[in-house]
Formats: sequence, C-alpha cells, structure tokens
Amino acid sequence: MPNISNRAQHMPPSPVRKLVPFALKAKQKGVKVYHLNIGQPDIETPETALNALKNIDLKVLEYALSEGNIEYRKALTEYYHSLDFTDLTPDNFIVTNGGSEALNFAISTLCDDGDEVIIPEPYYANYNGFTSTFNVNVVAVPSTIETGFALPPIEEFEKKITDKTRAIVICNPGNPTGYLYTREELQKLAEIALKYDIVIISDEVYREYVYDGKQQISMLAFPELSENCIIIDSESKRYSMCGVRIGCLLTRSKKIHDAAMLFAQARLSPVLLGQIAATAAHQNDGAYIRAVREEYTHRRNVLVDQLNAIPGVICPKPKGAFYCVAELPVDDTEKFAQWLLEKYSLNNETIMVAPAGGFYSNPELGKKQVRIAYVLKEQDLIRSAEILKDALEKYKLEFHL
Amino acid sequence: MPNISNRAQHMPPSPVRKLVPFALKAKQKGVKVYHLNIGQPDIETPETALNALKNIDLKVLEYALSEGNIEYRKALTEYYHSLDFTDLTPDNFIVTNGGSEALNFAISTLCDDGDEVIIPEPYYANYNGFTSTFNVNVVAVPSTIETGFALPPIEEFEKKITDKTRAIVICNPGNPTGYLYTREELQKLAEIALKYDIVIISDEVYREYVYDGKQQISMLAFPELSENCIIIDSESKRYSMCGVRIGCLLTRSKKIHDAAMLFAQARLSPVLLGQIAATAAHQNDGAYIRAVREEYTHRRNVLVDQLNAIPGVICPKPKGAFYCVAELPVDDTEKFAQWLLEKYSLNNETIMVAPAGGFYSNPELGKKQVRIAYVLKEQDLIRSAEILKDALEKYKLEFHL
Repeated sequence: MPNISNRAQHMPPSPVRKLVPFALKAKQKGVKVYHLNIGQPDIETPETALNALKNIDLKVLEYALSEGNIEYRKALTEYYHSLDFTDLTPDNFIVTNGGSEALNFAISTLCDDGDEVIIPEPYYANYNGFTSTFNVNVVAVPSTIETGFALPPIEEFEKKITDKTRAIVICNPGNPTGYLYTREELQKLAEIALKYDIVIISDEVYREYVYDGKQQISMLAFPELSENCIIIDSESKRYSMCGVRIGCLLTRSKKIHDAAMLFAQARLSPVLLGQIAATAAHQNDGAYIRAVREEYTHRRNVLVDQLNAIPGVICPKPKGAFYCVAELPVDDTEKFAQWLLEKYSLNNETIMVAPAGGFYSNPELGKKQVRIAYVLKEQDLIRSAEILKDALEKYKLEFHL
Repeated sequence: MPNISNRAQHMPPSPVRKLVPFALKAKQKGVKVYHLNIGQPDIETPETALNALKNIDLKVLEYALSEGNIEYRKALTEYYHSLDFTDLTPDNFIVTNGGSEALNFAISTLCDDGDEVIIPEPYYANYNGFTSTFNVNVVAVPSTIETGFALPPIEEFEKKITDKTRAIVICNPGNPTGYLYTREELQKLAEIALKYDIVIISDEVYREYVYDGKQQISMLAFPELSENCIIIDSESKRYSMCGVRIGCLLTRSKKIHDAAMLFAQARLSPVLLGQIAATAAHQNDGAYIRAVREEYTHRRNVLVDQLNAIPGVICPKPKGAFYCVAELPVDDTEKFAQWLLEKYSLNNETIMVAPAGGFYSNPELGKKQVRIAYVLKEQDLIRSAEILKDALEKYKLEFHL
C-alpha cells in the first residue's frame, strides 16, 4: 500500500464526520432528523440570483478570469463602497471557490511549514483543516462559556506571539459562538499586528447577521493595516447560497494580492455560474438582508430562550452569525450526539448537533458543549428544543448521570 | 511588510502571466487577438446542460455533499461503466472544483514536503503550481520534439525513483504535446508503480479527444493498480464547460479515497450548479462527443499542416487533446510572444501563444517552442497561421536573425 502523507494523517476530521453514518442509518429507519449541526440555512436564495441563472444566454460556459470576472468584482466593489470602504477597487479582490478557498489561499500565501497562526478558541473547526494542509500550527487563545465567550484580554494574544507567528485569525461575528468583536478589541489587535508586522485574517462571512441593533465592525475600518490585513468573505451565508461556492479574498496589500494570485492562477478559474448568481443577488441587497436578519433574530431569541429553560443547559446569547454554543448536562457530547442518532427518538424524530470538541485546539475543552445552528424555521427549532429536553432526561436515566 | 511564504515565493507563474497585460493593451488599442494560448474551446456547451440550469426549480442553493451529490456520482459511475470499468461505484469518486482541485487533493494526499513526483516533460505547467504549493519536487523525464515527444524508454522513469518518490504523474492524452500513451508504455509504468509501491496519477481529462481512429487507454485498465492509481477527470474539456469547475478524483483505493476526503471535507462542498449541468450533459454523451471529436480532428489537421508549411516551423502531429507544441525559428519564444502583442499586428490582428518554457522543469528546454491550442474554429486557425507566418518574417528582419 502506498504512503499517505503526514499532512493527511494529521488532518483533523470534521466534528460531525463520525456522526454522518449514524444520521444516515436513522433516516433509513424512517426517523426524521433535525439538522442543527451545519450552517445550511433553509432561507430561500434571492429570486434575482435564481432568475439570473435561468436567464443565462451564454452558449459556452467559459473559464472565468483567475481573479474573478470584472462584472462580479465590480458588484463586490460597489457592495464594499456601500459599507463605506470607498477606497476599494476591483483590483483588491480575488474571487474564490467559497470562503474556504480564500482561507486556503490566505494560509498558503503567508505560512510555511511549522509557522503559527493565533486563533481565539472555540473557533471554526475547518481552520484546523486549512492549517493542517500546510503543516501550520494553531496557537489557541481560550475563551470560556462562563463569560459568554468574551475575548480574553488582548495581552493574551501578545503573549503567544513568537518568531513563527504569521497571522491572527478572527471570525467576526464568530462561528461557533456568535461573538461580536468590539471596536476596542479590534483596535488592540490592529496595534499588535503592526507592532509585530503580522497579518490579521478576518473572516467576516457572517457580517450581515448581527442582532439587537448592533453593527459589525470590519477590520477594513483600520486603514493603518493596509499591508497587514486579509478579509475573508463569502456569498454563501449572506444570500443563503452555500452551494454556489463563491467567496473572495480581499486585501489592500498589493504584495499579498499578487502572491495569492499565484495560487489562484494555478487552479485557473473560480466558478463562473456562481459569479453570475452573486452579481444578481447584490442588486437587491438591502431588503433581502434586512428581512433575513429579522428572521434570524427571531430564531435566535426563540432557540436560546428554549435552551436556557432546559435544566442544566447553559447557552450565552450570541450577538451575531447563526450559531450558539451550549453546555449540556452530559458526560461527553460526542457520545450524546451519537446516542441521539443511534438509540433515541421521540415520536420518530431526533436532532443532530455538532459536538464542540472539534472547535477547540484541545477537544477536552468542548467535551460538554455542542454547537447548534439556528438555520431552521421557528417551529422546527421549538420542536428541536423539546426533543433535546426529553433526550437529556432519558440519557441521564440510561447512564445514571 | 509582513512575510510572504516561501511556497508563494517559489510558485512558478503561469506561462502566459507576463503576457496578459500586453494582451489587454493590444485589445485596448483595437487589435483583435486570436487566443491560441489557453485551452478554452469555442465549442458550444451541450444544450442539455444549459437547459438543466435554466430549469432549476430549487429554492435554496444548498451545499452539496463534500464527496459530491449522489445524482452526479451516479452519472459518473454510469459513464465509467460505458467505458467498461463496471466495477466502479459512486463511492470511488470525489467530486472536485475542476480537475485542478483533484490534482491538488492527489498531491496533498500522497506527498509531504521534499517528496518527489516524476513527470515526463514537457508537462502541463500547473503541475508545477500544485507541487510547489506543497513543497513537492518535480523530477522530469525529458521527451523531445525530434521524436514527436515520444515517451522515453520506461527505464528512464525507473532511474529517477528514490525513497522520496511518491507518484508518477502522466497526462494522457497529453497537454501540451497531444501525446497518446500506448498500452505497452502504460503496462510498464504500472509494473514500476507496483514494484516501488508508488502511485500513478493519471490525468485523463482529454480522454474523449483522440484522433485517427485511435482510442485512449485509461490507467483504470490495469486492475492490479487498484491501490496505486488515482485518475484525474474533469467535465471542462469533455463538454466545453470549463467555467462550471467540475472534476473528480477517482480511485479504487479506499485508503487513498478516505485520506483525500479529509481535504474535501475541509472545503465543505464542491459546486452544486456544475454538478447539475454535468449530470445533464452526460445524458447525451455519445452524439455530442463524436461531433466534437470530428471538429477537433479537422482543426488539428488544418492547423498542423499550416504550421509545418511555414519555413523553419516544426510541429509534430498530436494524436490527442487539442494542443500542439511547435518549434519556431526565433531566439526566444517569450520575447517573441510579447513582441506579437506589443509591437506587431497584421491588419489590426495578432495572435497570443504560450511560450513553452513554462512546460519544462528547465525553461531553457522550451525556449524555442510554443504551445498552440486548436480551440478556435477553422477560419480563425487559418488566419492565425497566416499571421504567424507574416510575424516570423518581420521578427526575423527586426532582430536580424
């Protein structure tokens, strides 16, 4: 048998990978599974986007430019102008196959083997994937559920910086915690980045979805970081079109842009069709996003209230994105999540959740936590919370907790 | 200024990267540029594929499964069954964002830093990109224009094998030379792969386009390689839909499949829309492909005859794909290609070609060669050859060659 690379052998599996076969088996038995485990919204994609696809009058579905076609990069530029970043031009963007590819390009552009990136934890589990791919080490700065996942003092970041540090990665608002960074926190991160001449990689794909009248502050609001900042963006969550795989890497640094372009050219072209859909979606920005934001606010309120009403469950109220991390009164959420799919059902229904261990550099820290995505409609979330409550009672009995 | 990674600094630029700004400038001056430099066919995408997009009745453009949706993997399976590889099932495929991502996954799954892959040269320039991304070294086995780029004796491959060798990469039929491997050559490669327990990565994206009644022999025809073979496939060239970004990594090895899946999961999902288009395209396989094959045969005959009629030009007749490599009577094809765009035009028209240096591990070997893609219609190819003939005369005069 031929060799498999070390990088593959050390790739952490996705937090729900082990659960997928159990979910399939549950469905085969006729059990309905509510998917709270993945950020796949049931919100409809904008009709303008779907219509743009239906009205394609191309005869040949050609390669797009490696950096993305100009029509779409212009639409992106206008969108960022509407956020008041009026200095940006189409040349600041590299269109990617989802935010995933943008993260991939960011890490490969900045980091060599053995380099380090600092990430506050819990963090988006796939950051582990993109760093492992390039043998880059994640240095975690922990936050805890007790403080609502508030960012630790910024000095904690500074303590972790070594001569191997190439970047600090933040997700704002955050997956999995829904944490929203304050201007003061971002300001301090910017100062550290400049002091040590490292890069802030700011993953802002949930930018539109912040609640309670708050507003996300982009890392772009710190122009002094022009050479030290990469923004990761995506249309997946903004327009509920995760399957079109359109994101971008945005930077004011020509040096970073030109280096990232080498990786973009090696893979020739980002998706053409998604650029057409996304260009159209940007035409009705405002109204769609306001309506979806209202819907998520409502879902969050319903879900988090229901969760906190379950004995022993703790769930800080997220300020943005569409996830929350909840602590459950169980011994091990991996075991519990599998049990939910394998052994349990309530009137032939169950739920699938993401054990939170995969969102920590040390999985033990998330052993009693799960990530729940509030991407389903209200009645499904209410039903899911009922199921969770009942399941926790039965699990407790079964395992004598 | 923050650090750029060594891997980025060592990424070879695409062979035409330097030329792109000159092509843009030529167009801005109103000069028509015939693009012979890229494998972007002007052949129409199958109508079934375009109609499938127009008839999408999804409300949400959701993530596809990381391994690709089952409908499309079933279509792929049927297609491979029609090629007589009836043992394959949907579980053998990982759907990727183009053949590019499949190559990326293949290299990252098999190779660590400093590992080696053996490739007969000249080879597809982006193989350099995918290997450099992972700090993998290409060990080239040279073929020459004098022998029509015939594969060197297979013993030459064996001589290059070290304990760092993880794979031999072939492209069959080949980009850029159009070379078609014989069964005997493939058989010997298979024997070497087994003897040293390394993997053959066989890039077969041009499989359908072989000429003169010949047939491509897939590496799948060697079942003894079940654990030692990865096939790279793509719909881009087969159905002239390069922009949909749908390819696949195909292997009979569960071990390789499962390792590659880790990278597939880290980037969540391949493109949904392209899978819909490609599933539909596979419905009218036979007729479309026969017609396109006939068209390419014709174009090849026209182009290669015209090229060889130009004094000092040598162009072996390719047996497959839609490229040829031609030697030109110039000092340096990089300089010549730039001159064509920057200084020259014939009745306000010029051509863009790919200098062949980028297709060799040592660019000097391709200094007098260009790659020409016969992806344009007959009259454009004839005109392009006229332009080349005239340009060569004027270039000779201008530089006293």
